[in-house]
Amino acid sequence: MSGQNAVQRKIDERAMAARWQREVWDGQNSRLSELLYELSDEQLQNEVSPGRNTGVYILGHLAAVNDAMIPLLGFGERRFPFLEDAFFKNPQSADIERPSAGELRRVWADLLGVLRENFDRLSADDWFNRHTAVSEEEFADEPHRNRINVLISRTNHLSYHLGQLALLKNKGEN
Amino acid sequence: MSGQNAVQRKIDERAMAARWQREVWDGQNSRLSELLYELSDEQLQNEVSPGRNTGVYILGHLAAVNDAMIPLLGFGERRFPFLEDAFFKNPQSADIERPSAGELRRVWADLLGVLRENFDRLSADDWFNRHTAVSEEEFADEPHRNRINVLISRTNHLSYHLGQLALLKNKGEN
Repeated sequence: MSGQNAVQRKIDERAMAARWQREVWDGQNSRLSELLYELSDEQLQNEVSPGRNTGVYILGHLAAVNDAMIPLLGFGERRFPFLEDAFFKNPQSADIERPSAGELRRVWADLLGVLRENFDRLSADDWFNRHTAVSEEEFADEPHRNRINVLISRTNHLSYHLGQLALLKNKGEN
Repeated sequence: MSGQNAVQRKIDERAMAARWQREVWDGQNSRLSELLYELSDEQLQNEVSPGRNTGVYILGHLAAVNDAMIPLLGFGERRFPFLEDAFFKNPQSADIERPSAGELRRVWADLLGVLRENFDRLSADDWFNRHTAVSEEEFADEPHRNRINVLISRTNHLSYHLGQLALLKNKGEN
C-alpha cells in the first residue's frame, strides 16, 4: 500500500466512524422527536414514575446538556443560558421559574437545528480533534478528549433519559 | 509520512476507537452493577412506573440481548437460550416461567464475564470486521455491519434501560 493510499484509508476510517456515531445520535433524536410529537403538554408535565422527575424537567435537562455542547465543541456561545440553572444545576424541587412545555419544545427544536448545522460542517478530522475544554498540550497525552467522544457520551446520556421519557406514553404503547 | 507509518497510525486509530467504545460500555455496566448491588430483590420486582415493566423483566431483557451478542459477535453459542422467550420475544404479561431475581443476578454476572473475556481477545481489526449476521459479500458494501457498531448500539440500549432501572432506587437517591 502506498503512503498516499494509507493516508486516504485513515481519513476514510475517521469519516466512517464519525458518520456511524452521527447516525446513532440522529436515530435516538428521531425516537425522541417522535415521542414528543406523540405526548401532549399535559403528559409531559407528568412524573415518569411517582415522586421522580417530570417529562418537562427531563427534556429541559437534555436541552441544557445540548446547549452546553455548543461552546464545548467550539460552535459559539450557548443559545439558552437560563437552561443551566433551571434544569442542570438545580433539581426539579428548586423554586425556579421554568419555561412551559410549549416553550421548551421550541427551545429543543432550535438547539437540535444548531447542533445539526454545526455537525454537518465538521470534517472527519475535526471530530477526532480536541474539544474546547482541553488544551493542545493536554490533548497530546489524552487523545480521547475529542469531539467524537463527547458525542458518544451525550448519545448515551440521551438514551438513558429517553428510556424514562418513554414511560410517559399511554399504557399499552411501550 | 511513510506507508508503514500510515498503516501503523490506522491500526492505532482503530485500537483507540475500539478502546473508547469499550470504556463507555464498561462504564455503563459499572453503573448498572452498582445499582444492582444497591437494590434488594424486592425492589427489583417492582415496576419502574405503575403498569410498566418490572426491574426483573428489564434486567432479563438486557441479559437476553447480551446472550444474543455471543453468537452475533462470533463468540460461540448462547449460554442461556431460555432468556429469549422469557424476556425478549414475549412481553412481561406473557404466562412464562421466569427465573427469580437472585438467579437472574447470577445469569447477568455470568454473561458479563463471557463478554468481557471475549472482548479482551479481539484485536482492533476484529472490532472493525463483520459480525456473523452479514456475509463477506454484503460486508464489502456495508462496512458498518461490524462488531464495533453492534457494541455502540447495545451500549445505547443498555443506557436506555439503565435510566428506567434507576427509578427503582429509594426516593431521594436519584
